[in-house]
Amino acid sequence: MSIKIGILGYGNLGRGVECAIKQNDDMELAAVFTRRDPASVSILTKEAAVANVADIADWKDKIDVLILCGGSATDLPVQTPEYAKMFNVVDSFDTHARIPEHFANVDASAKAAGKVGIISVGWDPGMFSLNRMYANAILPKGVDYTFWGKGVSQGHSDAIRRVEGVKNGKQYTVPVDAAVAAVRSGENPELTTRQKHTRECYVVLEEGADAAKVEETIKTMPNYFADYDTTVNFITEEELIANHSGIPHGGMVIRSGKTGWDNEHNHIIEYSLKLDSNPEFTSSVIVAYARAAYRLANEGQTGCKTVFDIAPAYLSAQSGEYLRAHLL
Amino acid sequence: MSIKIGILGYGNLGRGVECAIKQNDDMELAAVFTRRDPASVSILTKEAAVANVADIADWKDKIDVLILCGGSATDLPVQTPEYAKMFNVVDSFDTHARIPEHFANVDASAKAAGKVGIISVGWDPGMFSLNRMYANAILPKGVDYTFWGKGVSQGHSDAIRRVEGVKNGKQYTVPVDAAVAAVRSGENPELTTRQKHTRECYVVLEEGADAAKVEETIKTMPNYFADYDTTVNFITEEELIANHSGIPHGGMVIRSGKTGWDNEHNHIIEYSLKLDSNPEFTSSVIVAYARAAYRLANEGQTGCKTVFDIAPAYLSAQSGEYLRAHLL
Repeated sequence: MSIKIGILGYGNLGRGVECAIKQNDDMELAAVFTRRDPASVSILTKEAAVANVADIADWKDKIDVLILCGGSATDLPVQTPEYAKMFNVVDSFDTHARIPEHFANVDASAKAAGKVGIISVGWDPGMFSLNRMYANAILPKGVDYTFWGKGVSQGHSDAIRRVEGVKNGKQYTVPVDAAVAAVRSGENPELTTRQKHTRECYVVLEEGADAAKVEETIKTMPNYFADYDTTVNFITEEELIANHSGIPHGGMVIRSGKTGWDNEHNHIIEYSLKLDSNPEFTSSVIVAYARAAYRLANEGQTGCKTVFDIAPAYLSAQSGEYLRAHLL
Repeated sequence: MSIKIGILGYGNLGRGVECAIKQNDDMELAAVFTRRDPASVSILTKEAAVANVADIADWKDKIDVLILCGGSATDLPVQTPEYAKMFNVVDSFDTHARIPEHFANVDASAKAAGKVGIISVGWDPGMFSLNRMYANAILPKGVDYTFWGKGVSQGHSDAIRRVEGVKNGKQYTVPVDAAVAAVRSGENPELTTRQKHTRECYVVLEEGADAAKVEETIKTMPNYFADYDTTVNFITEEELIANHSGIPHGGMVIRSGKTGWDNEHNHIIEYSLKLDSNPEFTSSVIVAYARAAYRLANEGQTGCKTVFDIAPAYLSAQSGEYLRAHLL
């Protein structure tokens, strides 16, 4: 019997979840829920329904896990606790500073309803968090480094597009090779914001816009660009579409730590990702944790969990015997 | 109250465990058990006892977790099931093919005694296994690659030293850069044994030995070297001691997988280790899992577990609140 999944929100992440379900034989997409008119939403999975989110309560017994694909700013803080009253839920809440509060809200709802809620699933938070945690537990004496990129930052791309005179734009976050090399060498460098990442912008100007002024406005923008070495490249809309339509991302979590009676030996643990599609990879992680949510709920567990609380085997479609024989 | 650890076997791994315990404030070394005369064994931890393994039953209520630091060939298959009758145990059993059998034996003993046994802890098996498993669960459509090194292979170094005319020797396993680069690029190459790793030997000859014959014997040795491109470097005993006394190791686990409705996007997940001291890193992983064994036992769990069965948070000395606030 396959695990029945619902998707709430059909943007890049929702579509990624749909694709990931297709790759997992023990799962099926039951329905996509949308705030739009369902007739206007065309999905890829022929067998699945499209329903209005207003009718979601009708699906209470037809869905094993509801995957919430909204945004962290306003959607998930409301949706995840709300829908944990009816469904086992998984979200990718990524506002790091608000995770404790979100955890508490989802935990209360899910416990009251006898459901499981898994929050902040993806790669950061998610797989990067897991790797930070494992590496910290293994090497208590050490230093953590996280580099992001090369990849598209949605927030920084939006910031560029708000600049007067900009028609369209994309921003890549790029780790500085020298900084990465220094960390990998075990030097444990102290790195400023500027030393860790550069920002590469590809900008399409409005007709008649002042390129120099746009460049200056971008490079001096507080919070987003002022603390970085930023490059602004002006290109045509055609070039932007041809060369910068993807949503690649990735990065590295590195822990550099010491062992030995006098801390005489150095060790580098590195976890790195190189992703052609940020939302599809995030979705793939979420779908594996949806399997875990289903199993935990079947065992009678309730409440909010994060990647830290879930034994790895829960993510795999394979049995314990298979995993021990083939992957251990 | 700190977790009281016992160590059985005081070789490189046992000493590594002792060093790792020193780095973890919630643990203390209670005793080292040895088959030798305890008076002849000098340990680093002043507060801990050295006892003969024959007297280990006397420590039944004074030790929370016993860490088994023997070898996988003959020690652990007997010791782990045996001592799981008295203690919560952790071992680093690394004969991959015999893991299912070892698991069954330890599981039976530990369940009967109401103890927890965690087997095959370290980096391979151990952290590499975990990363293979996570990556497989996230990217069901993909290919796995494991590279080892650059590092000292104890088994291959032993094989060199058994060759007639060889006084001493060390062997390094080295991943082939071109193979690693091809894997990282997402090409999913099919790689032969020879294409993945080379073997570098540093050999000290006996006086009057025939260097050409030694080199030929090493390079054509079945199982160990015949399937690899092997380099044999003749050096003096002084050079061997000065430059090749360490026990570094490391390697990479890479999964190259596809996502998207038509598998159109590629993703590379890589976990890599660069270790100055193979036994000390292995010990550091073991000690983190000893914490997990203690906690699982306190929760009333019993039986055999592997890294797949244990939620990450059990490894950390930090609380769930701390982990969510700082590492998620």
